[in-house]
Amino acid sequence: VTEQEWRDPARAPSPEGVRRAAGKIAALLPRTPLLPLEVEGRTLWCKAEMCQPIGAFKIRGAWHRLSDLTPEERARGVVGVSSGNHAQGVAWAARRLGIAATIVMPRNAPKAKLAATRALGATIRLYERPGEDRDAIAADLVARTGATLVHAYGDPWVIEGQGTAGIEAAAQLEARIGRGPDRIVTPCGGGGLAAGLALACPDAAIHIAEPEGWDDVLRSLAAGAILPVADMSWPTDCDALQTPRTFPINFAVLRARVSGGAAVSRAEVAAAMRLAFERLHLAVEPGGAAALAAILAGKVEVTDATVVLLSGGNVDRETFLRLIGD
Amino acid sequence: VTEQEWRDPARAPSPEGVRRAAGKIAALLPRTPLLPLEVEGRTLWCKAEMCQPIGAFKIRGAWHRLSDLTPEERARGVVGVSSGNHAQGVAWAARRLGIAATIVMPRNAPKAKLAATRALGATIRLYERPGEDRDAIAADLVARTGATLVHAYGDPWVIEGQGTAGIEAAAQLEARIGRGPDRIVTPCGGGGLAAGLALACPDAAIHIAEPEGWDDVLRSLAAGAILPVADMSWPTDCDALQTPRTFPINFAVLRARVSGGAAVSRAEVAAAMRLAFERLHLAVEPGGAAALAAILAGKVEVTDATVVLLSGGNVDRETFLRLIGD
Repeated sequence: VTEQEWRDPARAPSPEGVRRAAGKIAALLPRTPLLPLEVEGRTLWCKAEMCQPIGAFKIRGAWHRLSDLTPEERARGVVGVSSGNHAQGVAWAARRLGIAATIVMPRNAPKAKLAATRALGATIRLYERPGEDRDAIAADLVARTGATLVHAYGDPWVIEGQGTAGIEAAAQLEARIGRGPDRIVTPCGGGGLAAGLALACPDAAIHIAEPEGWDDVLRSLAAGAILPVADMSWPTDCDALQTPRTFPINFAVLRARVSGGAAVSRAEVAAAMRLAFERLHLAVEPGGAAALAAILAGKVEVTDATVVLLSGGNVDRETFLRLIGD
Repeated sequence: VTEQEWRDPARAPSPEGVRRAAGKIAALLPRTPLLPLEVEGRTLWCKAEMCQPIGAFKIRGAWHRLSDLTPEERARGVVGVSSGNHAQGVAWAARRLGIAATIVMPRNAPKAKLAATRALGATIRLYERPGEDRDAIAADLVARTGATLVHAYGDPWVIEGQGTAGIEAAAQLEARIGRGPDRIVTPCGGGGLAAGLALACPDAAIHIAEPEGWDDVLRSLAAGAILPVADMSWPTDCDALQTPRTFPINFAVLRARVSGGAAVSRAEVAAAMRLAFERLHLAVEPGGAAALAAILAGKVEVTDATVVLLSGGNVDRETFLRLIGD
């Protein structure tokens, strides 16, 4: 591919792009742990992404995207749209690269995520969820400033970057049991992580977990066309997975690669958070526990080489206490 | 050294022994993460030992000890004495090596630790704390069965094994900032981990943290002789650090190498647990948070290359909720 081709934001994400991103991430950050967890007599391998500096996998895609910007693009800044984890990823990468970042975030985002994004030096533009259209707000900012939009999932660099978690997990599993994963189970919001993992691990079956009421990707896959979330006011604790709809760039990969999945209830998510606390000693945020929840609920089976993504840990203390205390 | 010399349980632990243990641990378990944490403008490097399969560093010493037993010794079994983390370490290593293990544990140990030790297949002999003498109970078991005593800290293999956390941390820090630690801050119960770290990292100053009322090692260092805990009924949440006194084998190393330390209050420990939850997304048990507590309380300073041990995460849910919820 020519430089012009891979610099095109409308290009498709590629396995080669994931490998290039993996080299950049390996030079920047240590691997997150891959921790064994016994589930009904089988070993499940948990990729602990809350151990990233920003507490979630989103640092991967943001770094791949921002570090590929030209000097001219860097000078004009970046705009992100996020409920909090992508926000921190973009803010972290921007601070490290000396790029000005503005993030469009919902007013009801977890306090921990708002505070952490601010602490990383980003400018925050709040919006009301539901009600305001965050993509329209971001588009307006981009039009006025010439900044680069770094979408939370509908972006080829972001998808490739998130896939680096799969490259790492495959190498770690190979070192532990002599083979890579045959199944990867992942939380799914807009589909950036799921699509990245699919590109990273062509031999693994991809299973996705979404919160009940926010299972638009599963419904889209069943329908063969992108469907939006039906009721954006549906209650969920999984703020990180509250995406209105997936994008064509994600859907193209998911449609070809997703083998199964499940919608999980609030109680199932809370049970997964409790188990991760008790057995792995990790704080997992609700959205980050969705895939483990699907497994524990018996909705996705564990194979001989299953990797599950514990995708983040940015949860307010009160929310955590309420959910694991029940 | 001859085989006879290094097989002598009365031998002194050595840096060479730590390096041999590090090779065995590296072949068995992945490194635990070394996570950066900003504390008042400096980066503190946190060694996250709750990511071990048993949720604490104790797997290191237990593995080094049990894997060095002869076939004849293995056949006679092992006896451990522990409030829970060493118990799990011995049980885990024993199960893997096919050795029968009996662990002497206090009746008031955390439920999570009792359950986990049982789940690993060990036989548990309960005792009352305070009241019964756990070392006498263990000695009686050993006398009757011919089993090998695997002491929680007063054992050269155990000390060397715990030191492997320092070998790992030094290599990880070198990879991140181009140098090893100049200071290591660690929770201290009987002094097995602290002595092991001292042997592992000869260029680092060793600082220890003990719970208020259980600061017998700090008092012993000040007095130049081993002093026991004055009041074994003193209330503390740090069950892992409730050791009645250090042993000469530990004290010899600590006396030569400990540069400083502090006793920490229950409130300081709880504050450290909250910070580790909020910023690192980790569940740290009270005893495992003592060293971080000393740093946050301003009792031990952070240098340019300070490593702190977060030594375990085996805490009951109710205790965790009570301590981080305040």
